[in-house]
Amino acid sequence: MKIVVQKYGGTSVGSIEKIKRVADKIIQKKNEGYQVVVIVSAMGKSTDELIDLAKAITDNPEPREMDMLLTTGEQVSISLLSMALISKGYPAISYTGPQLNIQTTSLHQKAKIKDIDVTKVLKAFDDDKIVVVAGFQGVSENHEYTTLGRGGSDTSAVALAAKLDARCEIYTDVEGIYTMDPRKLKGARKIDKISYEEMMEMASLGAGVMHYRAVELANKYKIPLYVASTFSEENGTMIEFKGEDGMEETLVTGMATSLDDIQITVINLTATTGNLSRLFGQLAEEEVNVDMISHMITLDGKMYVSFTIPKEDLAIAERIFKEWQIELPDIRWEINRNIAKISVVGLGMRTHSGVAAKVFKIMDDHNIEIKMVTTSEIKISWVVEDHLEEKVVTLMGKAFGLVMEE
Amino acid sequence: MKIVVQKYGGTSVGSIEKIKRVADKIIQKKNEGYQVVVIVSAMGKSTDELIDLAKAITDNPEPREMDMLLTTGEQVSISLLSMALISKGYPAISYTGPQLNIQTTSLHQKAKIKDIDVTKVLKAFDDDKIVVVAGFQGVSENHEYTTLGRGGSDTSAVALAAKLDARCEIYTDVEGIYTMDPRKLKGARKIDKISYEEMMEMASLGAGVMHYRAVELANKYKIPLYVASTFSEENGTMIEFKGEDGMEETLVTGMATSLDDIQITVINLTATTGNLSRLFGQLAEEEVNVDMISHMITLDGKMYVSFTIPKEDLAIAERIFKEWQIELPDIRWEINRNIAKISVVGLGMRTHSGVAAKVFKIMDDHNIEIKMVTTSEIKISWVVEDHLEEKVVTLMGKAFGLVMEE
Repeated sequence: MKIVVQKYGGTSVGSIEKIKRVADKIIQKKNEGYQVVVIVSAMGKSTDELIDLAKAITDNPEPREMDMLLTTGEQVSISLLSMALISKGYPAISYTGPQLNIQTTSLHQKAKIKDIDVTKVLKAFDDDKIVVVAGFQGVSENHEYTTLGRGGSDTSAVALAAKLDARCEIYTDVEGIYTMDPRKLKGARKIDKISYEEMMEMASLGAGVMHYRAVELANKYKIPLYVASTFSEENGTMIEFKGEDGMEETLVTGMATSLDDIQITVINLTATTGNLSRLFGQLAEEEVNVDMISHMITLDGKMYVSFTIPKEDLAIAERIFKEWQIELPDIRWEINRNIAKISVVGLGMRTHSGVAAKVFKIMDDHNIEIKMVTTSEIKISWVVEDHLEEKVVTLMGKAFGLVMEE
Repeated sequence: MKIVVQKYGGTSVGSIEKIKRVADKIIQKKNEGYQVVVIVSAMGKSTDELIDLAKAITDNPEPREMDMLLTTGEQVSISLLSMALISKGYPAISYTGPQLNIQTTSLHQKAKIKDIDVTKVLKAFDDDKIVVVAGFQGVSENHEYTTLGRGGSDTSAVALAAKLDARCEIYTDVEGIYTMDPRKLKGARKIDKISYEEMMEMASLGAGVMHYRAVELANKYKIPLYVASTFSEENGTMIEFKGEDGMEETLVTGMATSLDDIQITVINLTATTGNLSRLFGQLAEEEVNVDMISHMITLDGKMYVSFTIPKEDLAIAERIFKEWQIELPDIRWEINRNIAKISVVGLGMRTHSGVAAKVFKIMDDHNIEIKMVTTSEIKISWVVEDHLEEKVVTLMGKAFGLVMEE
């Protein structure tokens, strides 16, 4: 039995007309001999409208009641899409997350999927029905309706595909994964094939379509993930296991940039691991998300610790330092608000050590100061002055072949 | 433990502002020492909007998917109302019909309540929470979401009150039950107290606020039903068991009229019970709802059978007669499209036989022809020419004290 799980996002089902077109697309797959499970999000802006209703009632809606409210959005989509399929002569049946027993943890608005009972899905396959499932939602142990938070619907789709050992297709309003956001890099190339690891790095940089969480789950169960445009016949991007086939491998698969961080440098701390641990421990306690870190020890036994955090967390960080200063009057800190973080990602870096060197050489050739660098196994991130972002992106796009050939 | 079940209709929760005011009203009851269960309908016109969405997809939406769609309406209301209560400092918890295990038959769009599991409600009472329940919906044996059809939310409320042995309050946009629709009878009186039987007769005449089904259920379990306006402090109407206390009893409690029927008289049928049975059997098979019936046998063994049916069923009736005519060429039928049906209802008729006589005398005094009469234990209905409706209503209103004293 060939099974496919297709997921359609909110814009794909944003109107009655679009729902009908999505139904046609599903039917096409069904006619290719697949058993089809469809995951849908809430129609267009309907989730935002529900949130607005809640906000008109209270600034702090109870999370449980918020889930009760928001789960209606997908329930509307699944019923309408099923009606559309049935009216076109294709038996279909819709299920909410709770109805399908998509079991989750009990943390409202941020629940995690624990298991899915696919009995009803398999029963529907026996009846040759298309199964339409509400994404983003599930049910906790004590029968409470829950929602999965950001990236929820994609995660629902991947989880169902994992349980059904199926291929998973994510349909959205872009044509796939690009080497970089085409609004940032003119001529950015669509990637035909990308590995789970690369996609996870890209996703955690906030780049490209898929949420980290869904890719991580796909990687865990080795579910082939296909990302493509709902209303286009163009080929999309395949996210899957990529062998180390060396020769054909590109060094750098994708690039992302961010202007959302600031760089903080703490000066005159005594160079002890205890101080380092205390610094980042306190930031973590306050849920400040530290990204890049570098530190240097001077000859007189002091540390320079430099790191980046989201701009909106600056106030928290400054409060922490001021508390420290009472105890350690020597410490100082410098804040650089005008930075751009550039990251390049590629599985090829595992086996080819030259990527960092190439980056440094290009920066040097163009007199661009690198303010900070961090590397992981398949990623290099560095910080430059923010006004240089576009220039660096163009240089890197050309150097690593991230743009279409002319 | 004092328990009350309150039901608020769609117009009562038609906007965020109204939801907040309903929350205040509930809190007032809570502060009087009641444990409160609230049943709510979908906000304002939202059910109609959902139906419009479905109709834009297909003319014949699958009933199961229609229920999947429509149940979202109440789910939105319960979450918002719960948020409003919580934000005002009163712990509340919302439940959908399926979540509360409101068990129904499996006929989609017209399901009937079989039982309700009140475990969760009692648990919430232990935690001193207000329980907010989605009306109009339940769940069938095979875990399918169902809706209850017309009068559904009132029925949900009465059923819950029955299980909790509670008082039931129906809040709506009118101030109670009137002797007659005030748009039809100027000065119609609000009734303080009406019996279940009278209310059932009134409801089955399409008169007054409550659906027959909910009143019937209240009668079955002897649940006191209070009907009043949501946003007014005026006293409403109590529907309850009324003892035969004779002296204070009014002869006629209420009146209703209808212009929606036509009168058909079938002539020249051979007077046999077989023919009568065949006539009404065939109409019933075609789901033609026959209301009043009278028949007369002539000296030569022929029958005159006269009856009323809804105007929209005329075509079906004529088709049936035409089929008969092939077999029985003598039969004829006359159709009177211009009739008004007047009905008066009152428990007092059980013990006072003079009501029909009084009706006939007044009609005679004013030269109004009675074209047909039927009576039940507590109701008299008669047919007059439609242009006389207003005149008859005024005469009866005065004769039976249905208007406010001046």
